Amino acid sequence: MSHIVLRCPRCGRTRPADMSTDVCRDCAAPLDVEYLDDHKPVGNSDTYEARTPVHDSSSGVSLGEGGTPCVHLKALGENLGMRRLHGKLEFLNPTGSFKDRGTAVMISVAMDHGVTELVEDSSGNAGASVSAYSARAGIKAHVFVPADAPQAKLRQIKVYGAEVHPIEGPRDAVTAAAMDYHRQHGLVYASHMLSPYFAEGTKTFAYEVAQQFDGALPDHIVFPVGNGSLFIGAFKGFCELQAAGRTDKIPRLHCVQARSVMPLVAAFTSQAWNPGTVSRTVAGGIAIAAPSRQEQILDILRQVEGTAVAVEESSIVKMQHALAEQEGIFAEPTSAAAFAGLEEIAKQGVIRENDTVLVPVTGFGLKDEVPL
Amino acid sequence: MSHIVLRCPRCGRTRPADMSTDVCRDCAAPLDVEYLDDHKPVGNSDTYEARTPVHDSSSGVSLGEGGTPCVHLKALGENLGMRRLHGKLEFLNPTGSFKDRGTAVMISVAMDHGVTELVEDSSGNAGASVSAYSARAGIKAHVFVPADAPQAKLRQIKVYGAEVHPIEGPRDAVTAAAMDYHRQHGLVYASHMLSPYFAEGTKTFAYEVAQQFDGALPDHIVFPVGNGSLFIGAFKGFCELQAAGRTDKIPRLHCVQARSVMPLVAAFTSQAWNPGTVSRTVAGGIAIAAPSRQEQILDILRQVEGTAVAVEESSIVKMQHALAEQEGIFAEPTSAAAFAGLEEIAKQGVIRENDTVLVPVTGFGLKDEVPL
Repeated sequence: MSHIVLRCPRCGRTRPADMSTDVCRDCAAPLDVEYLDDHKPVGNSDTYEARTPVHDSSSGVSLGEGGTPCVHLKALGENLGMRRLHGKLEFLNPTGSFKDRGTAVMISVAMDHGVTELVEDSSGNAGASVSAYSARAGIKAHVFVPADAPQAKLRQIKVYGAEVHPIEGPRDAVTAAAMDYHRQHGLVYASHMLSPYFAEGTKTFAYEVAQQFDGALPDHIVFPVGNGSLFIGAFKGFCELQAAGRTDKIPRLHCVQARSVMPLVAAFTSQAWNPGTVSRTVAGGIAIAAPSRQEQILDILRQVEGTAVAVEESSIVKMQHALAEQEGIFAEPTSAAAFAGLEEIAKQGVIRENDTVLVPVTGFGLKDEVPL
Repeated sequence: MSHIVLRCPRCGRTRPADMSTDVCRDCAAPLDVEYLDDHKPVGNSDTYEARTPVHDSSSGVSLGEGGTPCVHLKALGENLGMRRLHGKLEFLNPTGSFKDRGTAVMISVAMDHGVTELVEDSSGNAGASVSAYSARAGIKAHVFVPADAPQAKLRQIKVYGAEVHPIEGPRDAVTAAAMDYHRQHGLVYASHMLSPYFAEGTKTFAYEVAQQFDGALPDHIVFPVGNGSLFIGAFKGFCELQAAGRTDKIPRLHCVQARSVMPLVAAFTSQAWNPGTVSRTVAGGIAIAAPSRQEQILDILRQVEGTAVAVEESSIVKMQHALAEQEGIFAEPTSAAAFAGLEEIAKQGVIRENDTVLVPVTGFGLKDEVPL
C-alpha cells in the first residue's frame, strides 16, 4: 500500500496515488500529495529532512539537486534600502534552474511506477530539466514546445536526448498537443504544472532556508511566479516545518509577474487585465496567462499576508544588470523580475529597512539569449 | 606580519607575500603559497577545513563557491567498463566553472591588499569568474581576450561589468598585452595562470572529495588540463590531507589534453609535438600551448604515477553527447575531453573494472556555443 494519497486542495476529496495528472473530478483543481504515514528523510544530513512521495528513495533519480548557496546581497540591498537582503542561488541546480528540485521527485515517482516514456510541455527550464532527469533515469521523454521558443532553451532540451515536438500557435496549443499525444499513445503526462509530485519536490527549498537562516526565518521571500511551483512548494515546506515545531512562523511570501502577463496580480489586486492582450516579455519563465494552480496561489497569498506586484520590462532588464554588476550574479530575466518586484514592494512600504528578505535566483543567465 | 610567504616550487627560494605575479628570480618558475602558522578553517562545516592565504577570511569575497555535488555515473561507467565512475559537478559553481574556487581566494587576497583595479587575460571561464568576483568585491577588472573568442564567453565576461580589451593575434599576444597594460598603469596582474593564490583556492576540491568519499579516496581522478590550476590545487589539497593524517593515500591524478594542443602530453610521453602546429579545438578551455606551470604539472604526474593522454575532436564531441544523453549532464566540450581521455586511459589498462574513478565536470555546456 502506498504511503500517500492525492488530495484536492479545494474540496478535500482524495484518490489513490498514481501517475495521472487528472484534476479533481468535483472541482477541477490540480491535486496535492498527502501523507498517510510518518516522516521519511530526504537527503543525508541529520538536520535536513522532508517527507517525500518517492516510495523507495534509494532507487530514485538524482543529480545532486538542492543545497544551493545563500549569499548576502549587501550592495544591491543598500541601493534598495534594505540591510538584510539575501539571494538563494537556485540557478546552481544541475540544469541551471530550481525546476530540478521538482523534476527529481516527479521522475523518481515515475520510476516507482515503472514509467518508461513520458510527455511534458514547456518552452524552457522545465523542459530542459525533465529531459535531463529522464535521460538519467533511462526514460524516453517527449517535450512539446512552442515553435517560436528561444533557440538556446530548445538546444538545452534537445541536448539531453528528449524528442522535441514543436507546435505552432499560442502556449495553450502546446499544452493541448501534449495532452492529445499522451492520450493517443497511452503515455504518462509528466506536467510540471499539474503533477502533484513536482510541487512536492520544490518544498526542500523551505527546509534549506530554515537551515541556512538557522531557524530565524526571513521576514519576506519574493518569488517570480508563473505556474507557481516553487512558491507553492516553499509554502508547503514552511507549513511542515511549523507543524513540526521547527520554526515559529511562516515568512510572508510575495509574487512578482511581468506587467504584460499578470493573471495572478490582476486577480489578487482586482485590477483589470485581459489575457487576450498578452504581449511578449523578457521574463519568459513566468509568462503563463492561465496558471493551472491560480486559486491555490491566491489562497496562499492571503494566508501569509503576501502581495502580488507587476513589473515593467525596463525594470527587469535594469535589475538583471544590477545583479551582475553589483553582486556578480548572472540571473535570467525571469529571476531578475523578482528583484524588480522587490523594489516595488519596498516602495509600497510592505518591507522595512531592518527586515530580513530573501529572493530565490531561479535561473541562470546563461540559459537566455536576450542581448544585454 | 603575514601568515604566508611565496615559495618557488623548483629552488625553494621564498619572498614575502604580495600581489605581484612575478616568477622566481632564479629559475623563472611561478610561485606557490607556503604557510608560516597553523591551519585556518575555511567554510563553516566542522568536517571541512583548509588553510587559506586570505588574511581575514570573514572579510573576503564569496558567492558560495564549492560544495558541488558528486554523482555516480552508472550508465556511462558501464559503457566504459568501470563500475565505480563518479562525476563531481564543478560546473555548479557560481559562474558555471571550477574557476570560481581559485578566483574567490585570489580576489579575497586582493581585498586584503586594498586592490581596487586589476588586469587578467582569458578567453573564457577564468575571465568570467574574475569579472564576477571583482564586481562583487567592488574592484574594477580589465579582462584581455582574443579578438576571435567565442561570443557566448565574451558576453558572460561583459555582463558582470569588466572592461573587455579584445586583442588580435595568437593567445600569447593577449597575455603580452595584459602584462603591458598592468605595468603601464601600475595595476595588479591577477592572472589565474601565475597567481599563487588561484591554485591555492582550488585545493578545496580535494577536501570535498575526501569528505564525499568518506575518507576512502578514489583510486584515479582524471582532469582536463590546460594551465592545470585544478590539477595542481587538487594535488596540494591531497598532500595536506595526507600530512594531517586524514587520508592514507593520494589518488593517481591523470591529465587529458586535446590532440591539437598537447604540450603536457608531448613532454610527459616524449612524443613529438610542435606548438607552431596548434589548431583549433572544441575544448577551448585547455587550448594552452605553453602552460606556465608545465614543470610543476609534470612533476606531480611523476609523483602520483599519473598518465597524460591526448584525445581526438570526435571523441570529445561523442563524450559530450554521451554525458548528456546517458547521465543528464550538460558539460562543456573541455569537460567532456576528460571522459574521452578516461576511455583512452582505460584502454591502456591503467584503470581496472573495480577501481573507483572520479572526473571533475569542470564547465557548464550552456557556456559554449558549439552546435550539438
